[in-house]
Amino acid sequence: MSDQSITPVVLSGGSGTRLWPVSRALHPKQLLPIAGERSMLQATVARFATPAFAAPIVVGGEEHRFLIADQLDDAGVAPSAIVLEPAGRNTAAAIALAAHQALAADPEAMLVVVPSDHVIADVAAFRAAIATGAPAAAAGGLVTFGIAPSAAETGYGYIEAGDPLPGLAGVAQVACFVEKPDAATAAAFVAGGRHLWNGGIFLFRADRYLAELVDHAPEVAAACAAAMADASRDGVFVRPQREAFLAAPSISIDYAVMEHTTRAATVRVDMGWSDVGSWSALWDIARRDDAGNAFHGDVVAVDVAGSLIRVDGGPAVAVIGARDLVVVSTRDAVLVVPRDRAQDVRAVVDALKANGSTRHTTQPVVHRPWGTYETTDRGDRFQTKRLIVKPGGQLSSQMHYHRSEHWVVVSGTALVTVDGVERIVGENESAYIPAGVQHRLENPGKVPLHLIEVQCGSYLGEDDIVRFEDRYART
Amino acid sequence: MSDQSITPVVLSGGSGTRLWPVSRALHPKQLLPIAGERSMLQATVARFATPAFAAPIVVGGEEHRFLIADQLDDAGVAPSAIVLEPAGRNTAAAIALAAHQALAADPEAMLVVVPSDHVIADVAAFRAAIATGAPAAAAGGLVTFGIAPSAAETGYGYIEAGDPLPGLAGVAQVACFVEKPDAATAAAFVAGGRHLWNGGIFLFRADRYLAELVDHAPEVAAACAAAMADASRDGVFVRPQREAFLAAPSISIDYAVMEHTTRAATVRVDMGWSDVGSWSALWDIARRDDAGNAFHGDVVAVDVAGSLIRVDGGPAVAVIGARDLVVVSTRDAVLVVPRDRAQDVRAVVDALKANGSTRHTTQPVVHRPWGTYETTDRGDRFQTKRLIVKPGGQLSSQMHYHRSEHWVVVSGTALVTVDGVERIVGENESAYIPAGVQHRLENPGKVPLHLIEVQCGSYLGEDDIVRFEDRYART
Repeated sequence: MSDQSITPVVLSGGSGTRLWPVSRALHPKQLLPIAGERSMLQATVARFATPAFAAPIVVGGEEHRFLIADQLDDAGVAPSAIVLEPAGRNTAAAIALAAHQALAADPEAMLVVVPSDHVIADVAAFRAAIATGAPAAAAGGLVTFGIAPSAAETGYGYIEAGDPLPGLAGVAQVACFVEKPDAATAAAFVAGGRHLWNGGIFLFRADRYLAELVDHAPEVAAACAAAMADASRDGVFVRPQREAFLAAPSISIDYAVMEHTTRAATVRVDMGWSDVGSWSALWDIARRDDAGNAFHGDVVAVDVAGSLIRVDGGPAVAVIGARDLVVVSTRDAVLVVPRDRAQDVRAVVDALKANGSTRHTTQPVVHRPWGTYETTDRGDRFQTKRLIVKPGGQLSSQMHYHRSEHWVVVSGTALVTVDGVERIVGENESAYIPAGVQHRLENPGKVPLHLIEVQCGSYLGEDDIVRFEDRYART
Repeated sequence: MSDQSITPVVLSGGSGTRLWPVSRALHPKQLLPIAGERSMLQATVARFATPAFAAPIVVGGEEHRFLIADQLDDAGVAPSAIVLEPAGRNTAAAIALAAHQALAADPEAMLVVVPSDHVIADVAAFRAAIATGAPAAAAGGLVTFGIAPSAAETGYGYIEAGDPLPGLAGVAQVACFVEKPDAATAAAFVAGGRHLWNGGIFLFRADRYLAELVDHAPEVAAACAAAMADASRDGVFVRPQREAFLAAPSISIDYAVMEHTTRAATVRVDMGWSDVGSWSALWDIARRDDAGNAFHGDVVAVDVAGSLIRVDGGPAVAVIGARDLVVVSTRDAVLVVPRDRAQDVRAVVDALKANGSTRHTTQPVVHRPWGTYETTDRGDRFQTKRLIVKPGGQLSSQMHYHRSEHWVVVSGTALVTVDGVERIVGENESAYIPAGVQHRLENPGKVPLHLIEVQCGSYLGEDDIVRFEDRYART
């Protein structure tokens, strides 16, 4: 690593299914402020805001690109690249894309690879562990961070630490990786003291990782090399060549590399880590009252203990006589589940998929590069939306066959173009867009534009849109 | 009873607190379709749709008058009067008002007094019991219907049946009234076979009831006589004189008369009765699946049994791993309570009252004589409503100081008057009402008018309204 700094590789490809109904495929857990004021992605990149680290490389899905870019911008973090996976191919491939990206800038790049949806309470301990592992990584090791277990968890893989590595203080060999154990085994692991949770955090040289990938998962290595050789670049966004990338098998770094390499090493760390893998895990790390309750939002509780009750944009929640319950209220879905069944939320999401519902993919508030929209009312032949357009934001120039639109500006200023004629529409003014007429909406001002749209027509689907020109390349 | 018909007196003054969040003070249980397609009031009056009964007298609150009138109209029932209690003074007074009203038309009127919020599955049995009791009532008896108990309920008062009344088949003396018993006593009552539930249903001559009231509760009798002597009449609505009525003590017919009179008699009836006094009681009478679940609306359930899950205008509900649970989802509040704690819903309503919340009084959909409105979105300096105006409905001529309004007609036709100028606004057309300008909205057409209103301004309270003229006498 030519300049001594380490490049964070932040993996943002997860879907956070078990935190439904707040987390949804198009707005997953890591992009939400579930465990604090900031999104988990923002909290993740903030851990690297020291001179010891270079600008991060974020790897995420094409469908999340504007959210990722906006959230990094809001956090004041300029990534060196946002690599957009054409489809999910698991961590071995995602990390390979980032390794190629890093090597292009620095042939000796060292990477710290982190999921974007974990909580780390003790950031100083985390940074210290990275410093401890760095000499081993510089010497060609593949360092994994083993988290000191605080409970006999059966939901995690474990790392068995072996002998200390000579001359590398605090770094041990990996004796073996262990799959998710049963309860008795997990209890023995915790008692024994040599087993650590595998939190999916890694430290290695980019070239070393790719060399190991060639040895142990050559199809992944070849697909990612080809995809990055033909990648297209659009500002900070890097798009690996799609067909080449799709040839990569979907496999985790653990199965593809770590379990086979002779260079695996581990650093033990105790840093208040949680993968926030379920509502129960969130309760574990939440601030709780004397009765063991964690409440968020407008909650009325009578004789309730050990419970997580969250209002996330949905109706207020009243609970009576509950023990160890999870209740989550969003605008279009409410979840009720005992804390010890929180893993089964996946079953609900599967049921929704089977029903053809969209409640597991989309949220009421939909993010677009220009801002957000939310359907607030819907009836026969009409639909009402609330749009918020960022300062400088511009919707595509578009036309609808089946609907007219009435726009009322309730805050800010709009520049409305209808059939080629531009007009400024101020607060408490309105505009009418007949069906079949080309139009565009933008916010020329310095404050967000809030606009109520009333759509009238026989068909109101999002797909009744003809785009003529789009600043965000969506035509 | 000069024409042999019996006058139903339907008491509609309850607030249905324990069926919150569906039932609310301004739209209580009896005016909702909680236990079927029709409202409970509509189901109640339908039980008297035979020549044996005269047109009903309904006694209810001033604040419910349009809902009551509309629901009777929808049900095709023309009441002889809707007597509006100036304030709640319990059943002794409410029945006295109705007795005076009935006597004015027929000095020999016989009344059957029924709550408006009970379910009776076997209407034929109910009518037969009334026929059985009629000779005793005609002879001056105060007949109460004792419901054959199906369980050792501790939530009801009981009637102990005494000796049969000679010459009156099926009618027994009342040995005594018993307050809500403890569980052991209730079990003994059910085993013994002489105790019946007191369902609050009565049959007597109007003059006899008033005479008993004079004897046993003279203050109630005097207050109601004075209030009805000075009552004002407005079509079907009868308004007892307010100050006179407020002098009446608040006391039930049981305490005021039935426990003191020597003329109490009872008819045993087994008619599938429920007071639907809680969500648990509703579960008892609901159609349930093999797992004992009663679901209503958009529900996803995984491993759920013995539960009542209702979506009543709120978000979809997903429940995992629940036994004997009640979950109710409305647009602005969600309730989660074990079935055996359903009585404690009252505690939530009390907590809301203490918080200054309005979630226990008003519903998202607000009923007005001209139709309904619902706030669908709200933000800084704006609010969006959906209005539905009935054919022929007319809002008051009004003005707002602090808000402008943008109206978009999405279905039907509006007649809009702004500053004295009338204009027809058709589907997909809009109108603008500046602050400070007198305006009126009406539906001149034959189909309901659906209109989206976007309000803009610094203050958006319902009380920013100056009414100039109102068809419904609300100025």
